[in-house]
Amino acid sequence: MNPTLEIFSQGEEIVTGQTVDTNAAWLSQQSVACGFTVTRHTAVGDKLADLIELLKSISQRADCCICTGGLGPTSDDLTAEAVAIAFNLPLEFDAIAYEQISHFFARRNRAMPESNRKQAMLPQGAERINNDWGTAPGFSLVAGRCWFVFLPGVPTEMMNLFHESILPKLSTRFLLQPGQLVSIKTFGLGESVIQERINLIEIPTEVELGFRAGTDEVQTKLLFPFAYPKTEMTALVTRLAEPLGDYVFAIDGLGEATGDLVFEIDKLMRDRKLTLAIVETASHGLLASKCVSYEWLLNASYEQSTARLGQNITTGDDINYLITTAKAMASNLQKNSGADFILVQLYSGDAETLHDKNQSIIIYNVLLNKDNCYQTSHSINGPIKRKQNQAALLTLDLLRRYLQNKSIN
Amino acid sequence: MNPTLEIFSQGEEIVTGQTVDTNAAWLSQQSVACGFTVTRHTAVGDKLADLIELLKSISQRADCCICTGGLGPTSDDLTAEAVAIAFNLPLEFDAIAYEQISHFFARRNRAMPESNRKQAMLPQGAERINNDWGTAPGFSLVAGRCWFVFLPGVPTEMMNLFHESILPKLSTRFLLQPGQLVSIKTFGLGESVIQERINLIEIPTEVELGFRAGTDEVQTKLLFPFAYPKTEMTALVTRLAEPLGDYVFAIDGLGEATGDLVFEIDKLMRDRKLTLAIVETASHGLLASKCVSYEWLLNASYEQSTARLGQNITTGDDINYLITTAKAMASNLQKNSGADFILVQLYSGDAETLHDKNQSIIIYNVLLNKDNCYQTSHSINGPIKRKQNQAALLTLDLLRRYLQNKSIN
Repeated sequence: MNPTLEIFSQGEEIVTGQTVDTNAAWLSQQSVACGFTVTRHTAVGDKLADLIELLKSISQRADCCICTGGLGPTSDDLTAEAVAIAFNLPLEFDAIAYEQISHFFARRNRAMPESNRKQAMLPQGAERINNDWGTAPGFSLVAGRCWFVFLPGVPTEMMNLFHESILPKLSTRFLLQPGQLVSIKTFGLGESVIQERINLIEIPTEVELGFRAGTDEVQTKLLFPFAYPKTEMTALVTRLAEPLGDYVFAIDGLGEATGDLVFEIDKLMRDRKLTLAIVETASHGLLASKCVSYEWLLNASYEQSTARLGQNITTGDDINYLITTAKAMASNLQKNSGADFILVQLYSGDAETLHDKNQSIIIYNVLLNKDNCYQTSHSINGPIKRKQNQAALLTLDLLRRYLQNKSIN
Repeated sequence: MNPTLEIFSQGEEIVTGQTVDTNAAWLSQQSVACGFTVTRHTAVGDKLADLIELLKSISQRADCCICTGGLGPTSDDLTAEAVAIAFNLPLEFDAIAYEQISHFFARRNRAMPESNRKQAMLPQGAERINNDWGTAPGFSLVAGRCWFVFLPGVPTEMMNLFHESILPKLSTRFLLQPGQLVSIKTFGLGESVIQERINLIEIPTEVELGFRAGTDEVQTKLLFPFAYPKTEMTALVTRLAEPLGDYVFAIDGLGEATGDLVFEIDKLMRDRKLTLAIVETASHGLLASKCVSYEWLLNASYEQSTARLGQNITTGDDINYLITTAKAMASNLQKNSGADFILVQLYSGDAETLHDKNQSIIIYNVLLNKDNCYQTSHSINGPIKRKQNQAALLTLDLLRRYLQNKSIN
């Protein structure tokens, strides 16, 4: 049995819905990955009585509780006070915490407001958690059956403190036996096609198979029990990935962390110091925006429709002419931009086809490098947002396949 | 005293952090706007005992509770069963619900799986909430002091049912006296400057003044009590907006709904059937991506640095030459694109300046229409992400000011 853990968030901005509680989701993911069973999230505002009641209940039902928020200097930051009352642990002045808070202001050449003194008052017996990223120290203590951790609500501070100070302590305090999750990430195959392709591969009963289908990728997920032999794990994953072929763009959980399609392209482009220039049409600027702030994208241009490219392209369309045009544009752009790779995306169909969810467009992608030119075409259906997104990803996938030495098709 | 309301979300995907609970934030915003005080959010997974205990507690402490999730056909959808046990209201077959579910499948030419029959079982005495957007009907009932509403967890279904079925009932069941929130939205002035500018304006004690500073805008917020006279409200808002001048791009809460800077530009561009073409540099494609899928953006191009534009621009820089270049590019683009407006953004500084958080860049914006050319320049400091975002917004703000007939400066 895994130890149980609850997440508790304090703040009027969460309870009133002005802030979405992304901290709770992030902390839950981390805790599950460590080997906890997360049983509950609770968020309350700045009512002292609510906080006290909640802390008392949690102390009786959970093995661990991570609390965020309510550690600030203002009068609606009540967490320490609520802990003091709930567990009868009067607040005490922590001289080291006070010094750290003073330093925080001194380093920024700012006078420390008197109200920040409050942040140095910790419940009796609490262990201070030093915070190098903000003014408020966190703290931890045991109450009832539960080990409580109190962290600031600012996401960057919370994440840094969790990694630096909490993670190392969790494994000494709890017997954690996390399952090992491996995700095979594919783009271009639907969940049902994947299921068919891996249908005949035998999966041991202690390994859980699942799927997660998003708009940008489908993940085939395998949850292995704690201490499952690494070689058997790798062998099974390899067997499952094989029939999925070139559609696999990353495998997560066997070593190096992976990301989405663009993340994988970014790794390869940076490693090899390559550059890219693009022209997009159907994807409406979305292709460039998926690469925002990657240094390897030298330039990008978007034209609303193929017909507006200044070429004499008619709706309908002459496909050979479209491809010839795309190649000529790529070649032109190669000269002007000096980029290592050029991607050009054109499509056949007019604005009406693009907007009509019952009609399909066909996109034509050309990838040009110093020596060769590759091309793909894909039919895309559905509402305009889906068409735009699929077009952006299918064009990028041509580059990904080239970089990963996969077949281009 | 406002009636109190809690949000309750069911689902392992929320408790394990795979899904961020955006439903809770959305429902809280709606409920606060209606006149409720939202006191708590709770999320639990698929443990029946947890669900039962939680429903019982809420029935004793809240006036209203909106629950999402757990209404699906599978064995981990336990909400109705938990309600039945918690409040001793055995599940009963609802023939109309069953018919609706059958119709849902029939309309899609799909056979109804036997498991969906479960969704037609409602707790005794519950009022069915018809769901035209999915298979699961919602339901409502009174238990203890609390009116419970149970909705599906799929966001679009949940939102549609809330607007169609729940909102009208809330005002008949509860005495709601919502405050009236007005937000003056500005771009380009910091919070402290705003405070200084409105410092001397007297605000009645019953009106709450607050600020919300984001990266893309600062909101000066006024919360007026229920039934505060409209004319006095408008007069006070006008007095506060006046010293903020042209930096105000929208005022929310006095009539027509408003959005962010791009939303406001979109309204004006669509109303007047205008089109735009852009060239951006420092904003790295972010400008185009803020306008993704707006039809009025005819084309967009991004160049990583001013130096790469093919012009002979040196770092340093000759400002007059930069502006002359921007104007020439705009004029060129006007001929080629045929767009009503051209926006060109250049900046002085090299890649190092852009990336160094301790150095500033200066961006130069040119707006060209049929008759005139307008220009602005701004110094931008901070980390690269901030520089990119500010550059995108400052360039767009030049267009916004023109469209709203504000002074260009």
